Amino acid sequence: MTDKAASTAAVIVIGNEILSGRTQDINLGYLGKRFDELGIQLIEARVVRDVPKEIIHAVNHLRKNCDYVFTTGGIGPTHDDITTDCIAEAFGVAVERNPDAEKCLFDRYGKEINEASMRMANIPAGASLVENPVSGAPGYRLENVYVFAGVPKIMQGMFESVAPELVGGDPMLTKTISLHMKESEIATGLSKLQDEFPNISIGSYPFYKNKRFGVSIVSRGTDEDQLGMLDQKLRDLISELGSDLLEN
Amino acid sequence: MTDKAASTAAVIVIGNEILSGRTQDINLGYLGKRFDELGIQLIEARVVRDVPKEIIHAVNHLRKNCDYVFTTGGIGPTHDDITTDCIAEAFGVAVERNPDAEKCLFDRYGKEINEASMRMANIPAGASLVENPVSGAPGYRLENVYVFAGVPKIMQGMFESVAPELVGGDPMLTKTISLHMKESEIATGLSKLQDEFPNISIGSYPFYKNKRFGVSIVSRGTDEDQLGMLDQKLRDLISELGSDLLEN
Repeated sequence: MTDKAASTAAVIVIGNEILSGRTQDINLGYLGKRFDELGIQLIEARVVRDVPKEIIHAVNHLRKNCDYVFTTGGIGPTHDDITTDCIAEAFGVAVERNPDAEKCLFDRYGKEINEASMRMANIPAGASLVENPVSGAPGYRLENVYVFAGVPKIMQGMFESVAPELVGGDPMLTKTISLHMKESEIATGLSKLQDEFPNISIGSYPFYKNKRFGVSIVSRGTDEDQLGMLDQKLRDLISELGSDLLEN
Repeated sequence: MTDKAASTAAVIVIGNEILSGRTQDINLGYLGKRFDELGIQLIEARVVRDVPKEIIHAVNHLRKNCDYVFTTGGIGPTHDDITTDCIAEAFGVAVERNPDAEKCLFDRYGKEINEASMRMANIPAGASLVENPVSGAPGYRLENVYVFAGVPKIMQGMFESVAPELVGGDPMLTKTISLHMKESEIATGLSKLQDEFPNISIGSYPFYKNKRFGVSIVSRGTDEDQLGMLDQKLRDLISELGSDLLEN
């Protein structure tokens, strides 16, 4: 075990459509899982409206407090795509027509591409482009802020384009045990195990499915041996309490 | 049209399980839709870890900037349920055993209820309880902060218990039109319509489904007549551009 400390990250989901409930965000879940694999600790996510000062505030607050910030949404060709202007303003730089981004768009759509689409070649000064293997128009990185599209397939493509350059730590490993039992019945035992394994985060997540309450116990940590020991003790505890495990 | 200004709200989703991608949050979508109906404007959502200072910071920041704050998660009986302690600390009040909450729990689970469950009767001083019609253990309100469970069924029950007391404005109305067209083709026309209807927010949301790109145009506002006029103009624009509408 190398015990390499995790980097930290925040995600800013930009878009009225998420806050209105019209669109269910799935980017956060994707990124959360990938961060675990890469040993990057996601410490906060914010969903903000298409309001410049709110986007700028979130970007400037989080980029100072995290190793990485990832934004999703608002970099398309329409009037409501205001992320690039906000990023530029957050950094105090201009937005300029980026020749490499222009080339990406010409390569994908030909020289007859319309001016609205060409807005996607406007990039904050000093940013480096992030490849978009799905639909051409690039994302970009400015210092520690990565600016991605909101469409999940495109967001994922952009993330995977930069994943190799992200500096993470030991992968976060997870073990989950689910049972039909009230959380309260296992609470005391769990609390003792948490004290015994301070480097593992033990979460207890109640659920309600098919009119029955149950609980999932999720153990997270970077040390596989310790996770294995804890898992065995959890199974012993559950069997002492007289419950069966559910399939996960 | 009464043009009653909307109240503002923020949501704080508390829990490592959302950030890790293990659990897909659906509470935000539910609340977003209900806020629209109630004429409450959701201005920000945050997903925070089970880390006291981060929860406290989010609560104190948002309760000063919004009419309502709603938290979800972390009020169960286990060691990782730390929301109540954090809310109390955010407000500078003590956590105390609440006799009414105690009664809710006794009524639901009988007097043989264990001590772990009784943690759910510990409530910040000065809070008023929020009924939980699903599983008994109450939520609560302290000033403008509503503290709800994270399990969606329970969260929804708690929200509906308090919905009648929330002061909203005119309901937010939404019209959506979807088409197979690149966003860029409609961008110029959309931008003109946005200028023509400044009280309506027009969002353009690209999607990628069955290997085809498309776009949903979402118009949001409180004035039904204006929304109807805009809708007709949008349909004219789309037909001019030679695209068909998709079923929504």
